[in-house]
Amino acid sequence: MVQLDFSKLDGLVTAVAQDWKTGEVLMVAYMNAESWELTRKTGIMHYWSRSRKALWKKGESSGNVQEVKELRIDCDADCVLARVRQIGDAACHTGYRSCFHRVIEEGGGERVDGVLVFDPAKVYGVSTERADARGASAERPKPYGEKK
Amino acid sequence: MVQLDFSKLDGLVTAVAQDWKTGEVLMVAYMNAESWELTRKTGIMHYWSRSRKALWKKGESSGNVQEVKELRIDCDADCVLARVRQIGDAACHTGYRSCFHRVIEEGGGERVDGVLVFDPAKVYGVSTERADARGASAERPKPYGEKK
Repeated sequence: MVQLDFSKLDGLVTAVAQDWKTGEVLMVAYMNAESWELTRKTGIMHYWSRSRKALWKKGESSGNVQEVKELRIDCDADCVLARVRQIGDAACHTGYRSCFHRVIEEGGGERVDGVLVFDPAKVYGVSTERADARGASAERPKPYGEKK
Repeated sequence: MVQLDFSKLDGLVTAVAQDWKTGEVLMVAYMNAESWELTRKTGIMHYWSRSRKALWKKGESSGNVQEVKELRIDCDADCVLARVRQIGDAACHTGYRSCFHRVIEEGGGERVDGVLVFDPAKVYGVSTERADARGASAERPKPYGEKK
């Protein structure tokens, strides 16, 4: 039985969720021992919310749960890579498919590059500052990996 | 200018390195403000080694540096996703292309699934316990994403 090393992050390991088909990195979060066990046993991604200090079944509010297709760990067992099927096609609370929709430009600024899947105001009942501030709805969705 | 949030991990952010062409997740490590700046300015990945408590230019010993092709950050700016060209084609000190070569099986055990690129004994001058113990050389390299 594989033992994860929860000692380096005070009881947590880092967890990367990756779309199992496209390879897009959807989000990075953390797991404690309980969320790791639940993820393994249920086949649905469970994390540990550091802000809420609580077990976090991803998609509990939005319905956008993540089905586990494959679980990997890294060489020193302190990080999980989960290849998942993202229900609802959006992992980010801002409505984007991926949390990593902020691209750093050469000068150190940023631009948004991502697929906006839902309006967070409709899903969570409140508008998120980030989706609004970035003019998210004006973004043209681009296939992941398309080079500029 | 984008400001990363280094407050959640005592001065660090998590950094995921992903092969810019195949989408394979190569490794997860950490960056402090200095390594983030150096990464941005030099176009070569720099991390913070938590075990050595030192700035870590990835590939300094092995020559397997990582050229930055694109830097992204996540919605709350506490995680970096770097799409990189991995020089030497191996990110892991065990000689595997990716650190995530350990697949968790249904019963909770593991199997190795990864491409072994180099013999760590030849590169670092010492054999690593992990590559030996897992019978790495007996593994048949499989294309990333191939389904079983």
